[in-house]
Amino acid sequence: MLTRVPTKEDILQAANRIQEYIHNTPLLVNESLSSMAGGEVFFKCENLQQIGAFKMRGAMNAALSLSSEQIRKGIATHSSGNHAQAIARAAHLLNTKSFVVMPATAPEIKKAGVRKFGGEIFECEPTLQARENTLREVIKKTGATEIHPFNNYSVIAGQATATLEILEKVRPHFLITPVGGGGLLSGTALACQYFSPETSVIAAEPVGSDDAFRSLQSGKIEPAQSQSIADGLLTTLGDKTFPIIKERVKEIITVSDEEIISAMKQIWLNLKVVTEPSAAVTYAALLARKEKFSQKKIAVILSGGNVDFSKILRDFQ
Amino acid sequence: MLTRVPTKEDILQAANRIQEYIHNTPLLVNESLSSMAGGEVFFKCENLQQIGAFKMRGAMNAALSLSSEQIRKGIATHSSGNHAQAIARAAHLLNTKSFVVMPATAPEIKKAGVRKFGGEIFECEPTLQARENTLREVIKKTGATEIHPFNNYSVIAGQATATLEILEKVRPHFLITPVGGGGLLSGTALACQYFSPETSVIAAEPVGSDDAFRSLQSGKIEPAQSQSIADGLLTTLGDKTFPIIKERVKEIITVSDEEIISAMKQIWLNLKVVTEPSAAVTYAALLARKEKFSQKKIAVILSGGNVDFSKILRDFQ
Repeated sequence: MLTRVPTKEDILQAANRIQEYIHNTPLLVNESLSSMAGGEVFFKCENLQQIGAFKMRGAMNAALSLSSEQIRKGIATHSSGNHAQAIARAAHLLNTKSFVVMPATAPEIKKAGVRKFGGEIFECEPTLQARENTLREVIKKTGATEIHPFNNYSVIAGQATATLEILEKVRPHFLITPVGGGGLLSGTALACQYFSPETSVIAAEPVGSDDAFRSLQSGKIEPAQSQSIADGLLTTLGDKTFPIIKERVKEIITVSDEEIISAMKQIWLNLKVVTEPSAAVTYAALLARKEKFSQKKIAVILSGGNVDFSKILRDFQ
Repeated sequence: MLTRVPTKEDILQAANRIQEYIHNTPLLVNESLSSMAGGEVFFKCENLQQIGAFKMRGAMNAALSLSSEQIRKGIATHSSGNHAQAIARAAHLLNTKSFVVMPATAPEIKKAGVRKFGGEIFECEPTLQARENTLREVIKKTGATEIHPFNNYSVIAGQATATLEILEKVRPHFLITPVGGGGLLSGTALACQYFSPETSVIAAEPVGSDDAFRSLQSGKIEPAQSQSIADGLLTTLGDKTFPIIKERVKEIITVSDEEIISAMKQIWLNLKVVTEPSAAVTYAALLARKEKFSQKKIAVILSGGNVDFSKILRDFQ
């Protein structure tokens, strides 16, 4: 796996390496959503990606970067979200094992998503400490290699490939991604620096978990508070992602959960794609700051579409 | 407008004519949905089309086939569904007027969809007789040209272009479309006959409104009964669509509303696209007759994605 900030060549190699295992997802436009925003909006539909999220890119690139001996011993991670499924699918595609540490409280649907690809689940207490300890034990026992959800340069290079696909079709003035741990944002910022320096990268974050926003202000990693419907974005930045972001991302727009739900509903209604709150935060940020984006070309990454329908239904009422 | 069954050239011309006004929609694959079906399934996402349905193709082709004098006087139709919005948008794009006859009982959201594009609505009693009478009066008063939702050769040629786009990417053993009035099915059957005769065209229909199924059996147009969640498929075949279908479509698979809802939920969950019941009927038919499609390549047209969320999400409970 990469031990340095991904270079231009690292990202191009990642794109080439993962190509046969992922979808080159559609870049959709919609008159109503563009008109509401006052600019020309391009939606990169990573919700239509394998396992329903961009996480497949980074997990696959990291797994494919391992030696055959490492691959044979399997890959491991702790995650209760989309990364867990991505790791399980990556291992399945490479005919090896995956070991996923999850809090015992994780929803059954998330566990089923991992088991579907033959992933082995290790349950633990729902604290970061317990997750890290359990993962350490699992790795000691199995010899598997950890693939972190975001604080890993090979994962970051993989996430950057979504932006490569956007840039093959459009050169936007702005590119908006969500920010949680910062893997997608880091990859996006690097890809734009190398391949479209005229594109400004902007992050979108829920106001109830605005740690990345505060980190940019204070100049050091601030801990996340974890209060938002955008459950994929409640993570604190990592020591590999923060420096990349700090240097390249000039602005993070924060939005309320109400704004996220309203944007999500407009996306479902008009674009007709199932979008999770952590993805809709991007379009919410665009609507919240219309004057900035007026008459511009804006690409937004719809990062995932894994939602609990019964919960969403209540939010849409 | 065309006065004969569309030829190969008519369909190619339609594709060329409407190209700049429609999306070339994504053809998506999904491992889970293919595995559930036991074959390789390709979803033609006309739910991601302009106005959220394939109807935009036929309406646009018909409108563009009119003389400039006809266009100036406007276009008219009676419809409470996706065709109404398609006509309104087509007129808007051509800088002319649209006149849409709708039952007074039509949902407000459908009326709003027409008004959004400047369409003028004429309300009437919710009977076919009242709709036809009102349309006749409107046309007499305005001089507008009627564009029928399906019983119109230029509309049929337009709907055929969805199949052209599929065939550019895959040559399936089977192609499944829904059948209501038969416009999409007729266009699909003609396109396959001309451009991929090895592809068998199959229609999918709700068992509660299986008039097309019965019409193929009896050899004459049987009236629809109108009992299904698939509200776009409650229409009786037309005297232009039935002969095309009768000659070219060997099989219509009927499915229950429960099967439609279950298939629709799987599409939302796995493919992450918002699909209306009238579109999910295709995948339901595939699941209902797995042995037939085993190990084959099957394209299904997801015809639209215009749904009432509060209703659909209740069905998902």
